[in-house]
Amino acid sequence: MKKVDIIFDCDPGHDDVVALLAAVAHPEVFNILGITTVAGNNTLDNVTNNILSVIDHLEFDIPVYKGYATPMRRDPSPAAGHGKTGLDGPVLKPPSSKPQDKHALDFLYETLISRDEPLTIVAIGPLTNIGVLLMTYPEVKEKIEKICIMGGGIYTGNVTQKSEFNLWHDPEGAKIVFRSGVPIVMSGLEVCHAGGILHTEYVKLEGRGRASQLVFELYDFFSGNMKSKGIDWSPIYDLTTILQIIDPSIFKSEMFSIDIETEGDLCRGMTVADQRPFVKKESLNVEVLMDVDREAYIGMLFDALDILDKRYQ
Amino acid sequence: MKKVDIIFDCDPGHDDVVALLAAVAHPEVFNILGITTVAGNNTLDNVTNNILSVIDHLEFDIPVYKGYATPMRRDPSPAAGHGKTGLDGPVLKPPSSKPQDKHALDFLYETLISRDEPLTIVAIGPLTNIGVLLMTYPEVKEKIEKICIMGGGIYTGNVTQKSEFNLWHDPEGAKIVFRSGVPIVMSGLEVCHAGGILHTEYVKLEGRGRASQLVFELYDFFSGNMKSKGIDWSPIYDLTTILQIIDPSIFKSEMFSIDIETEGDLCRGMTVADQRPFVKKESLNVEVLMDVDREAYIGMLFDALDILDKRYQ
Amino acid sequence: MKKVDIIFDCDPGHDDVVALLAAVAHPEVFNILGITTVAGNNTLDNVTNNILSVIDHLEFDIPVYKGYATPMRRDPSPAAGHGKTGLDGPVLKPPSSKPQDKHALDFLYETLISRDEPLTIVAIGPLTNIGVLLMTYPEVKEKIEKICIMGGGIYTGNVTQKSEFNLWHDPEGAKIVFRSGVPIVMSGLEVCHAGGILHTEYVKLEGRGRASQLVFELYDFFSGNMKSKGIDWSPIYDLTTILQIIDPSIFKSEMFSIDIETEGDLCRGMTVADQRPFVKKESLNVEVLMDVDREAYIGMLFDALDILDKRYQ
Amino acid sequence: MKKVDIIFDCDPGHDDVVALLAAVAHPEVFNILGITTVAGNNTLDNVTNNILSVIDHLEFDIPVYKGYATPMRRDPSPAAGHGKTGLDGPVLKPPSSKPQDKHALDFLYETLISRDEPLTIVAIGPLTNIGVLLMTYPEVKEKIEKICIMGGGIYTGNVTQKSEFNLWHDPEGAKIVFRSGVPIVMSGLEVCHAGGILHTEYVKLEGRGRASQLVFELYDFFSGNMKSKGIDWSPIYDLTTILQIIDPSIFKSEMFSIDIETEGDLCRGMTVADQRPFVKKESLNVEVLMDVDREAYIGMLFDALDILDKRYQ
Repeated sequence: MKKVDIIFDCDPGHDDVVALLAAVAHPEVFNILGITTVAGNNTLDNVTNNILSVIDHLEFDIPVYKGYATPMRRDPSPAAGHGKTGLDGPVLKPPSSKPQDKHALDFLYETLISRDEPLTIVAIGPLTNIGVLLMTYPEVKEKIEKICIMGGGIYTGNVTQKSEFNLWHDPEGAKIVFRSGVPIVMSGLEVCHAGGILHTEYVKLEGRGRASQLVFELYDFFSGNMKSKGIDWSPIYDLTTILQIIDPSIFKSEMFSIDIETEGDLCRGMTVADQRPFVKKESLNVEVLMDVDREAYIGMLFDALDILDKRYQ
Repeated sequence: MKKVDIIFDCDPGHDDVVALLAAVAHPEVFNILGITTVAGNNTLDNVTNNILSVIDHLEFDIPVYKGYATPMRRDPSPAAGHGKTGLDGPVLKPPSSKPQDKHALDFLYETLISRDEPLTIVAIGPLTNIGVLLMTYPEVKEKIEKICIMGGGIYTGNVTQKSEFNLWHDPEGAKIVFRSGVPIVMSGLEVCHAGGILHTEYVKLEGRGRASQLVFELYDFFSGNMKSKGIDWSPIYDLTTILQIIDPSIFKSEMFSIDIETEGDLCRGMTVADQRPFVKKESLNVEVLMDVDREAYIGMLFDALDILDKRYQ
Repeated sequence: MKKVDIIFDCDPGHDDVVALLAAVAHPEVFNILGITTVAGNNTLDNVTNNILSVIDHLEFDIPVYKGYATPMRRDPSPAAGHGKTGLDGPVLKPPSSKPQDKHALDFLYETLISRDEPLTIVAIGPLTNIGVLLMTYPEVKEKIEKICIMGGGIYTGNVTQKSEFNLWHDPEGAKIVFRSGVPIVMSGLEVCHAGGILHTEYVKLEGRGRASQLVFELYDFFSGNMKSKGIDWSPIYDLTTILQIIDPSIFKSEMFSIDIETEGDLCRGMTVADQRPFVKKESLNVEVLMDVDREAYIGMLFDALDILDKRYQ
Repeated sequence: MKKVDIIFDCDPGHDDVVALLAAVAHPEVFNILGITTVAGNNTLDNVTNNILSVIDHLEFDIPVYKGYATPMRRDPSPAAGHGKTGLDGPVLKPPSSKPQDKHALDFLYETLISRDEPLTIVAIGPLTNIGVLLMTYPEVKEKIEKICIMGGGIYTGNVTQKSEFNLWHDPEGAKIVFRSGVPIVMSGLEVCHAGGILHTEYVKLEGRGRASQLVFELYDFFSGNMKSKGIDWSPIYDLTTILQIIDPSIFKSEMFSIDIETEGDLCRGMTVADQRPFVKKESLNVEVLMDVDREAYIGMLFDALDILDKRYQ
């Protein structure tokens, strides 16, 4: 299998970290060219520091580029569930490594424009970096194999009835991306819920190894929200994008014609799927993951963590 | 069976007329206290004239009250599919009967406030009349058994991907109604599509009798839009509300928690159903008809027209 | 001079009460047919109670009709400066008199439609009652001599840079009124500021008589906001509409072509005056009071209170 | 006098060309580092071609960088008055010179970041290029002496009552610029109207020389709109920014506290000046040119054209 070159665009965030770990565990699948950060789950400074701390802690070697501190049109609005820092739970040292001098926009542009082969963008935060990229340099579209997005939902939201956080945070950026014509694989809330981890499962990670222990601590905090509602599982949203690249066979997906609503208290950021009768085939612009074999999904996560844990023994 | 007292709030409109015919055919079920009109499929003047012409043509005896000429906040915007007059197709004489002097709002209020028993409102146009009624006189809520609405859709729209015409035309009026706490039975686009009439079916009405002939002429025009797209059936939207009261057993329905989006190019007027996991039972505020036995539905229409046809022999 | 028949539409509110007192003091000028209330400075219940308490306290004999508890499209949002009840300051007894059974909308409609001569509406709260009136019964327009509005501003706002509270609270209602074609005299913030009362002036009212004492207590509370900013005067907004009818000669006014903006964080409810070069004369739809002889204005208030005070001796 | 280094950000556009000519005529004042283009008066391709054609025709030597083809959030919407191409009137050859390979955003960033001394941005089109610049690279703010903007108006608009074209076209970009804290000198519609050229004046340019002839042909077309309304002068909007740098003494200006409204049919893009009493001095963020000595203004234009004309003799 040919390796997949990816740029990892994120706003860590607990699930962002889990997704990164799963990608790093599989160097035979992924060649991670760089990480770009964006305001979302927390401020740009915090999410950048979070990923740098994780990189230090796990001794990864991936350059990090800071992107946008605000959405294209609105004020940033941190997500409550990730705590004050955006990565509450584990006590990590402040990062000793630093982000690169280059802006994420320039890293994305220069990397893409200089390539012969298109690459894959894994975009698991608000789509500000990618939206401005496509607006500024439309010529890079042909250098993008696909964009694997965590965001949206066909039937459900999490900020409102129909709005998922990432797309709600920057609907204008999202609209540019979804209208770009670049192939999109969308991990929306349906598949993310389908792949939820039982609270009886994540606790098994405790004490198993350096990577497992980190994920344990992350989910021991992040699961608090669901536990408080009496629910016995938690989503690992961003992980879906990575596992789907490794093994698409455990997922079910469907093509939709999707546009983004940018206005409205209820529907701002909604992935508006055209479900009218007689939708034309040529308007189907997004492959949406709708379901997953949950046990296989959790199994792949545990396997990835095992691989990483061994590296630190 | 106890008779159902109804007020018939409409914007005729081809399907509005069919719905009225079905109600008038069943005096053992319905006691129609009055018809109120509202701008929607066409201007207030035109839709009022349309219903008066039909009443004259079929010798009905129902008082008509003119309601609002504009939505609560926006400019009126006639629906294309109903032609220039809102009831293109049949050539009816200009009405000799006249609307009552009283405004629809006053007729609704006075009728409701003076009753001991609650009644049913069949609301098959934009919800301007009913929205202003509930905003002005919230004390009438307890005098309303339920509001049977044609409008919205859980998954699909017809003006946009997610917006159905009636609610798109006056989303502010609709929001007041859906948030009112009054029981609502909603005939959305899903059930209206499920009950579509085949073009091979409506042609059988030609020459059968005065009522049948009128419906034939209405659908010979109204089906043009679907025929032009190569589709072999047409919806009879508003009819659903009436048939469901006569025989709910042929319908399948589901409870939803619904609010109305008032903003946005894509979602203005959308019936936003909360499909998040763990929606609370007490928030389920609308019974939505989702499916119907199509042949039974069309059969009921033909039976109703037969009953009427006989009256003119 | 012929008496002016008025309906007094208000949301008391400190300045609403002062305006009412000035009108009641001049029975040779005003024939007050009724008071209609509307949510604005406080909830509908509170502003209605406030005016009833004042009526009891000063032994007025004017029927009060409750109007709308919410703006046409938005949630009500009380004004901070008037305190918890909307009329903080004086300690008045809870009202023993009650509002009429009829809704303000019906009182307005029935009064207008049955008249031969047009009357004047003094509208000093959000324009919900008047907006719905004109939307529902456009035929009453010819029965309205003019609408004297407190609201808006050509250059300045008080909720935002450009939005004045009354029009900001219900911009949709205001838009209907300003677009209605009915003659409008607008007391905007410019003239209301020009007629401000010095804090050294209102204190002279203390102990002078029953009406004066009430106004003293009202302004001893209401001036707190301005005092806290180190400003030595306070506006008596609504009073302007009444004094301008009594003696227009102390005011300067200008004709403007005005429309209402209903959207935007900064401009929602703004009275958008067309100040482009070459505005057509026929588009000038509002007489805007722009300035006043302040001493004459305050003098008229004191004179009115003297007249009232004598009634209770 | 020290020379002023400028970047000239524009969407030519008749008046853009006149402004450029005035700047090029004064090499003792201006050092033009480059021209950046943006969609506005016409499509990005057309406005870029327009400026390249002018550069070829007048043998200028200034690099041109293409910027954004769309506003930050909305679809582009060409201005009617400039004709099909955005520069109708003169018949210029298609350009033989080409824009640089670099995007305007990169040219702006790299130029600014590498400087010791801050420079001046003359921004006379929609503020998309400058808005994205400041959003992406806030660190360049300290490298900008000031931004001289043609746009907005304190009292008047030209697209709507209150919205001027440039800011209306990209209100989101404008909001970023006006909120940036960078010193702004704004040539709004008031001063642009004050400096209008009489139609009896521009005709004197015919046949005078290569530059004068071009301006004659430009205004013979551009004045058509005003002539059709019976008005005997036309504005030369963008010229104001350049003449003000050359000789501020002929202008009158005032400091305002300005924010940008992004929503609303009437006020989208409005420069919302805070004209409330007691505006704090520290909030005054924009120097707005309010008036100009018209004859001096037109005199300066004729002088500049004379200088240029001589170069081609």
